[in-house]
Amino acid sequence: MTNKFQTPVFFQHKLPLLSEIKSLPSMRTVDDLVLVYDRKLEKLNPFKLWKEQFSTRYPVNAGEELKSLSEFSEHMNKLSELTKGCSPRRLGVIAVGGTSVGDFAGFVASVLKRGVNLVHIPTTWGAALDSAIVGNTSLNVGSLKNHIGTFYPANGVYIVSLLLSSAPPKNVASASVEVMKMGLVAGGALFEKLGRSTLEGVHLLWDCIPDVVAAKQAVVGEDPFDTNGKRQLLNLGHTFGHVVEDYFNWSHGVSVGFGIRFMLEWSVQRGFMHETKKSEILKIAERLWPKEINEKHKAMPKKELIARLILDKKSEGEGSIHFIFMRSPGELMREQVKILNLVDEAHRQGWVK
Amino acid sequence: MTNKFQTPVFFQHKLPLLSEIKSLPSMRTVDDLVLVYDRKLEKLNPFKLWKEQFSTRYPVNAGEELKSLSEFSEHMNKLSELTKGCSPRRLGVIAVGGTSVGDFAGFVASVLKRGVNLVHIPTTWGAALDSAIVGNTSLNVGSLKNHIGTFYPANGVYIVSLLLSSAPPKNVASASVEVMKMGLVAGGALFEKLGRSTLEGVHLLWDCIPDVVAAKQAVVGEDPFDTNGKRQLLNLGHTFGHVVEDYFNWSHGVSVGFGIRFMLEWSVQRGFMHETKKSEILKIAERLWPKEINEKHKAMPKKELIARLILDKKSEGEGSIHFIFMRSPGELMREQVKILNLVDEAHRQGWVK
Repeated sequence: MTNKFQTPVFFQHKLPLLSEIKSLPSMRTVDDLVLVYDRKLEKLNPFKLWKEQFSTRYPVNAGEELKSLSEFSEHMNKLSELTKGCSPRRLGVIAVGGTSVGDFAGFVASVLKRGVNLVHIPTTWGAALDSAIVGNTSLNVGSLKNHIGTFYPANGVYIVSLLLSSAPPKNVASASVEVMKMGLVAGGALFEKLGRSTLEGVHLLWDCIPDVVAAKQAVVGEDPFDTNGKRQLLNLGHTFGHVVEDYFNWSHGVSVGFGIRFMLEWSVQRGFMHETKKSEILKIAERLWPKEINEKHKAMPKKELIARLILDKKSEGEGSIHFIFMRSPGELMREQVKILNLVDEAHRQGWVK
Repeated sequence: MTNKFQTPVFFQHKLPLLSEIKSLPSMRTVDDLVLVYDRKLEKLNPFKLWKEQFSTRYPVNAGEELKSLSEFSEHMNKLSELTKGCSPRRLGVIAVGGTSVGDFAGFVASVLKRGVNLVHIPTTWGAALDSAIVGNTSLNVGSLKNHIGTFYPANGVYIVSLLLSSAPPKNVASASVEVMKMGLVAGGALFEKLGRSTLEGVHLLWDCIPDVVAAKQAVVGEDPFDTNGKRQLLNLGHTFGHVVEDYFNWSHGVSVGFGIRFMLEWSVQRGFMHETKKSEILKIAERLWPKEINEKHKAMPKKELIARLILDKKSEGEGSIHFIFMRSPGELMREQVKILNLVDEAHRQGWVK
């Protein structure tokens, strides 16, 4: 395989390579690179110039609609027409955008000619800290989010400060929850760094991104195809987080933050963690993540909670679900719990009215 | 992962497990097995009874239309609805049918919830000797055959004599070309066995299937994602075979047979192989494969040949293509050749008018 990229390229099923650079990477203009990018980026002059080096370009409208399976056939018809003469080994998809663009373009790369090269250039913090790194790709089937997809790590990931610095503040707030979550998943040096840090917002993110990415790569590297439970640990705070995200329509970051609070309280209640350890963790989290996560929360009807738990993809058969508890940062346990026990705990924590 | 299958099940990215049995395997009836099957099998009474053990069944119309990407969204909507509550680790797709059913169901299994268990029960010789074994899945994008797909070896493959014995004679003839091809790819004991064999037709196939499958598994096991060229050796005879298949509308088997003859002649012409070795090989092949491959062939206009070679997916950039030559059975070389040189050779062999 000829290396068409500026950095060493590992082909699929290797961990992605991370490069941090200030401006957009120059890439040799060859016919077999397809630039799939968020159309909104055309407003950004440096991007507008940069994209000219690619002869094959495919602008998309970012958002959940892009990931709709019903639109996929039309996208793929066009993309196949653009790439039909190319050899899969020489073909590369360069995905520039947020999570929806990366999930879509990653899925395209993973199935086009049974897999071509893939490079992510994330433009949002969510993509940079998560979707571009973990090697998942996905599409939505009707209302079923991420119901189809592949495990397909990128050959390379470029973290470009020029692009990320233009990400909206809301995005930064959500990303800080992701950083906190990874501090809890990894524990050790990353958690200590967060405890010591006096940085906030985007400064904290730039300071932590190499550590967060390394921690995440360590987890997915141990479980590339989501078969041994390790990768599931990245769902810390998500079981309950998804419920409140869906019911209250809160942002993903804020919802996961509440999910982490829920998990910490329940871990204490189950006797896995000391109250003092929980307070110590919350003190760090409360400084880092959006302030609304620290405030008193709303409640929801019991039946709405139950319905959402039963439909959760982590639900295992009738009436039980996997839940991740914590002893201390870096010490997580994935347990099968009864949905009714989770509901009782939600009641105890004032989530059920 | 709970083992839901009668035989030990290896999860993805392992070589498939082969079981040869006389009748259909009994499988524990659990909610999370989805039977995807060729609707025509309902005419077969033992199958009709057997399928009743599956509560989730998805009959399909076999054929290329099944693999059309434009139909995929509708299939996936239905299949997602049938399986939405299931955990991917406990979910299995059981594919019963020929190549189109296996390619389709395999692709479904490879992307549904980012990959679920997959068992192939091939009902044609082509599927049993090839598509169910090699771990490819694919769909067609418009007229571009197999333009999207994945590498997704099955957890298990059942070779069921009850089903294969009802495959049509045409199917058997094509399969004998596949057996001959694998004798040439593998060389050694398999080639010697073919040389010694006095069996014909379906008896030859039953005698050789374990050896052919083992030889094929050895090749794909060395190159699971088609990255180092080993898997390409399975395309022996296909570069030229695809051209005549497309132009003359001959069966795949007969076309590959002519492709192998073309390859043997060219290998001698290039000095890779002795004339006597070629004659020895052809003597064996002529006994095993359909007799029409031994006869004088038609010719085609030069421009029709060139157009098809340029569109070949093995074509590498302008004007050249990968071609597999042979020194002797088991000793193959994949070389980049100029399309015009291939055309000259076709002219020399009387393929161009």
